[in-house]
Amino acid sequence: MAVQIERIRKDIDFINKFNASPERGITRQTFSKEYQAAVDYVVKELKYIGTEISYCRGGNIKARLPGTDGNAPAVMMGSHLDTVVHGGRFDGVVGVVTALEAARVITEQKIAHRLPIDVVVFAEEEGSRFNWGLLGSSIWTGQLDHSRLENIKDSGGVTYPEATARAGFEVSDESMLEPEKLRAMLEVHIEQGAVLEKKGCRIGLVEAIAGIKHFDITITGRADHAGTTPMDARADALQAAARIIASVEDIAQEIGAHTVATVGRIACEPGQSNVIPGIVRFSLDVRNPDETVLNSAITTINQTVKDICDNRHLGFEITPLGSVQPVSLSGEIVDLMEEKAREKNIRSLRIVSGAGHDTALFAELAAAGMIFVPSANGRSHCPEEFTRLEDIGLGCEVLLSTVTALAA
Amino acid sequence: MAVQIERIRKDIDFINKFNASPERGITRQTFSKEYQAAVDYVVKELKYIGTEISYCRGGNIKARLPGTDGNAPAVMMGSHLDTVVHGGRFDGVVGVVTALEAARVITEQKIAHRLPIDVVVFAEEEGSRFNWGLLGSSIWTGQLDHSRLENIKDSGGVTYPEATARAGFEVSDESMLEPEKLRAMLEVHIEQGAVLEKKGCRIGLVEAIAGIKHFDITITGRADHAGTTPMDARADALQAAARIIASVEDIAQEIGAHTVATVGRIACEPGQSNVIPGIVRFSLDVRNPDETVLNSAITTINQTVKDICDNRHLGFEITPLGSVQPVSLSGEIVDLMEEKAREKNIRSLRIVSGAGHDTALFAELAAAGMIFVPSANGRSHCPEEFTRLEDIGLGCEVLLSTVTALAA
Repeated sequence: MAVQIERIRKDIDFINKFNASPERGITRQTFSKEYQAAVDYVVKELKYIGTEISYCRGGNIKARLPGTDGNAPAVMMGSHLDTVVHGGRFDGVVGVVTALEAARVITEQKIAHRLPIDVVVFAEEEGSRFNWGLLGSSIWTGQLDHSRLENIKDSGGVTYPEATARAGFEVSDESMLEPEKLRAMLEVHIEQGAVLEKKGCRIGLVEAIAGIKHFDITITGRADHAGTTPMDARADALQAAARIIASVEDIAQEIGAHTVATVGRIACEPGQSNVIPGIVRFSLDVRNPDETVLNSAITTINQTVKDICDNRHLGFEITPLGSVQPVSLSGEIVDLMEEKAREKNIRSLRIVSGAGHDTALFAELAAAGMIFVPSANGRSHCPEEFTRLEDIGLGCEVLLSTVTALAA
Repeated sequence: MAVQIERIRKDIDFINKFNASPERGITRQTFSKEYQAAVDYVVKELKYIGTEISYCRGGNIKARLPGTDGNAPAVMMGSHLDTVVHGGRFDGVVGVVTALEAARVITEQKIAHRLPIDVVVFAEEEGSRFNWGLLGSSIWTGQLDHSRLENIKDSGGVTYPEATARAGFEVSDESMLEPEKLRAMLEVHIEQGAVLEKKGCRIGLVEAIAGIKHFDITITGRADHAGTTPMDARADALQAAARIIASVEDIAQEIGAHTVATVGRIACEPGQSNVIPGIVRFSLDVRNPDETVLNSAITTINQTVKDICDNRHLGFEITPLGSVQPVSLSGEIVDLMEEKAREKNIRSLRIVSGAGHDTALFAELAAAGMIFVPSANGRSHCPEEFTRLEDIGLGCEVLLSTVTALAA
């Protein structure tokens, strides 16, 4: 095998030249001119090594290295090129360039493969333009009905199909992604956390992707004068919220087992320094790879909200917003990747992803696997996002060995 | 004595006809047309009973019943007619109409008084138009230099002197309020809290007005991904803030002695449900009538902020904003009012005001006293603000007896 990290460096640098916010981080929203330029670069490189390009339903792109068995299901690898606003240089890009480099090595070294090998670029993974994450892969895998697309709009009111057409993206293959035509889906991605770095491991083998439950919680007390209302006569919504928020951390730590729980947004009314808050609204985001543990965490938090509010004679409302089911990735793939890493003396760690990824949508269709590479200080979705080129190279090597083994 | 509560009812109803927000509560901002109409009504009533009207420096109005001794210092009584936005029918108005009614009874019954008796209407007590509370009385008593008025503007950029002139308010007496010309200042006001109601008392005798210290507190952690950052690897600014906010309540309750402490405003950045808060800013309002206790509460809270942030390796900044010194009102007046209430079999309570009032500015110039009447459920600065007419009548009776005793 001969993964060339200099080629990967050049790919990453080239793609990140296409950036709508050079003053701060990287901004490359789906179907923007920067996005299309980055896609064009990758397509050009993929054509150069002789792949067959298909422009697929949902705005995704597939580049095929045909296998010796024309009827065999494909092994797919790839990620996305869109970013959040003021994001980093690695999220998504790493998965595309490692797949591209793996495909280059396969063609250069004329590695025989019975199964077709596909490089894929998913559209609108971040949801930062159309406020709908994993959009391209959701459409392609049939998890989002095409008819709903007319209602998915960017902040300027442009629908997803309109934006696709305006970008000159012409779908050449209208077919859905069918399970029987897919053997496996593999994705290299930055960890976006600091577990690998902390444990001194250079490769994470993702066993599961956490389920997510989002809630809005509203506490209702009474807005009174901050000067004339004695402490024991108050119905202070923020005092209850503060105790609930503290409990959210305590509960997540107590449950452990990869549980994370976050309050990221809070607002109070009337929001004046000299008025006791009458209403407080805050978000709650709870994640766990095991649905039972996830539900048990939610139950405990909800009970705490009730106890604290009842005790203080305050009203409350817990509104469930979106939720994502936990996903178990393929044990076969984890074992295979672990074996390949061991052969190369790369220290790997079985890990759980707290973030969602396109590959999660493939877990029920085929053998799905993900390789994480370390994020410096766990930073992601920000200009400080950084992953060492050497680690990306190792991720690419494990990807290449695993894909060629599966496609052999 | 013959205070007529029907006249008081009529006065309150008439004044509250002048309202810029009939759809919700009462809005009567200083020098608005509604404000001027309410002032005109009160002036007309004061002229009717033969008082001499002066339009005083700072936008205040003084109506004098001359005493038999032309050189004696005056006994003054009154309050304000401006309201907060969407405020209530009683805050301020009660102090004006009880002073008006007391003056009516004095003239009707020809009650002899050696000292002049003044009815006063202060301008911009609430600070809701010019964002500067107690403005009229601050100018008149020389606590705010006239030269600074050009910089005090409403949200439309109109300065206080411009607004005064546009409203047709022509100052007829440019003199400052001089201590030697003032014997006492008395104000009836709604409690704006629920202490009297809770204790079943109909009159509060204000011994002191709490000092206030305002702060802005900023906690700085690190904004990380809510899904990929394990609980033990977080620098969550909101988790620290939640614990500090809970401590603020605990500390105020522990110190007791009229201590109140409130966090009324909170905001976090980036403020997304799936991102750990990196920065949290919140307000802190602490009040106590005793400066030593107030400072001790602040010290304890500041130490708690430091302990919690140090323990979590977070940064913090505590920025002092405005502060108001605690004020002790006249013991002579409290004793006198208590005696008058006892004579009338009115159940009174010595009380501390958590809110600021114009009368606080007179405490160093003359004998200053305040009479509180109960607020239903402690509500104020809202459409639900309510005080029973009977209680306002009792407040007026105590005011009348006290003023006539002082002016005798």
